[in-house]
Amino acid sequence: MSWWSVRKIIRFSHCDPAGIVYYPRYFDLLHEAKEDWLRDAVGVGLPALIGTRRQGLPIVRLETDFFAPSRMGDEVDVAVGVARIGGASLGLDYTIHCRGERRLSARTVLVHIDLATGRPAPIDDDLRARLAPFAITTEGT
Amino acid sequence: MSWWSVRKIIRFSHCDPAGIVYYPRYFDLLHEAKEDWLRDAVGVGLPALIGTRRQGLPIVRLETDFFAPSRMGDEVDVAVGVARIGGASLGLDYTIHCRGERRLSARTVLVHIDLATGRPAPIDDDLRARLAPFAITTEGT
Amino acid sequence: MSWWSVRKIIRFSHCDPAGIVYYPRYFDLLHEAKEDWLRDAVGVGLPALIGTRRQGLPIVRLETDFFAPSRMGDEVDVAVGVARIGGASLGLDYTIHCRGERRLSARTVLVHIDLATGRPAPIDDDLRARLAPFAITTEGT
Amino acid sequence: MSWWSVRKIIRFSHCDPAGIVYYPRYFDLLHEAKEDWLRDAVGVGLPALIGTRRQGLPIVRLETDFFAPSRMGDEVDVAVGVARIGGASLGLDYTIHCRGERRLSARTVLVHIDLATGRPAPIDDDLRARLAPFAITTEGT
Repeated sequence: MSWWSVRKIIRFSHCDPAGIVYYPRYFDLLHEAKEDWLRDAVGVGLPALIGTRRQGLPIVRLETDFFAPSRMGDEVDVAVGVARIGGASLGLDYTIHCRGERRLSARTVLVHIDLATGRPAPIDDDLRARLAPFAITTEGT
Repeated sequence: MSWWSVRKIIRFSHCDPAGIVYYPRYFDLLHEAKEDWLRDAVGVGLPALIGTRRQGLPIVRLETDFFAPSRMGDEVDVAVGVARIGGASLGLDYTIHCRGERRLSARTVLVHIDLATGRPAPIDDDLRARLAPFAITTEGT
Repeated sequence: MSWWSVRKIIRFSHCDPAGIVYYPRYFDLLHEAKEDWLRDAVGVGLPALIGTRRQGLPIVRLETDFFAPSRMGDEVDVAVGVARIGGASLGLDYTIHCRGERRLSARTVLVHIDLATGRPAPIDDDLRARLAPFAITTEGT
Repeated sequence: MSWWSVRKIIRFSHCDPAGIVYYPRYFDLLHEAKEDWLRDAVGVGLPALIGTRRQGLPIVRLETDFFAPSRMGDEVDVAVGVARIGGASLGLDYTIHCRGERRLSARTVLVHIDLATGRPAPIDDDLRARLAPFAITTEGT
């Protein structure tokens, strides 16, 4: 399994006066892909994680390389992979491709927290088991 | 007093591939102006209203006319006025002008709710007194 | 045919500190639905309209009623219908429902412009014919 | 001179259902600060750069560390500094602080392009001279 992918459309609202994606909007796309992956693949959607389990996954580190611009109407594939599962942290990597061209790659580190305390908390075993199939062993290209 | 106004800059992030404001972003500007007005003029900022008083002002009705486009770098004046104070509702009107040209006018109706119940609740007398000076008697142009 | 509908998910990014949709984000959803409808149903996507035909459809009038809040994870149906086709203008109506509950209804007026001049221009006969099947005769509920 | 700073307010629209800044919105703040800095300090605003000089500064690399959350109403100081001026590239660093607490630091690399060709182009001498006073020699903390 490893990389999980979802197709997204570059929207009018994502694009700037130069006609290309205004870069902060790429992170809306990455967040959407993470939400889709948690719900459809991992099996614990963000509403359940936050509302029922009372856990959060705030970001603490982000690295992004932008390789080529995207334009309104582009159908892009956003891929998500698990780079690392720590005790209370999670490394998620992303790539965005369009028709074989790499547009963006990103590496993120999230911390798993208990919303009641706001403090880091160990990732539960069941969630850990659900994340394991998406482990990636080589860097996305 | 009546209309209260704040200057805002049209940002790169507000503009679309046609180089003009993507219309949903105008409502970010109106919301910002409302936040500024509540904090700086009315004297009860949104964080205090929500966090301390545990009251909210969700929108139930919006009418907007768009008269002329705005472009990146435009310095616009966003004006807010109180069209009506009801028992548990508030009518706020807005205009956006740039160098004498009217760009937009909007009429909104907000409901004053108790966040504990989510139900409409009478506007407190002190808030009512704070809102009164911003009553507008004629329609903005 | 008349009303055309597309399902959307209420995203984390749409929601505010009260956990419900921050109202300007609803207009991102309406714009997305319009883009989907133009591309998938009308058959002239926004990139083709703007990039090839060099025509635009800026908004001049918006009315919205907000009936009930939406929360992260809600799967909502956004419906689009043609309320009126004028010489150089287009009335589009929208509703958003979730599990049978009406959340929002909106009425918009767009002007059909020639991007070369920025002036209103008659809606071409082929576009007019493509829009006709989506005419709605009764108000959405 | 070196670091240049501007105060921003954390807006309702920046915050998520957890009541803290939804991380992509931080990049709207960084972009706003860059726009303010270019216009007010460097003396070549983005509208002039894009519209008159026909040059752009797209991002190719971003690194961000998130140290502590920000909440609605927080008044934060966004600082911008020039980490490196290359032939056709520009390294801009950012920090966000609130009441002495570091919330975020970011390092970006921008490419200076000719909008007519979309290709990298040498940074003009006058722009280079305007950027020089903002060179930072030590990492922001």
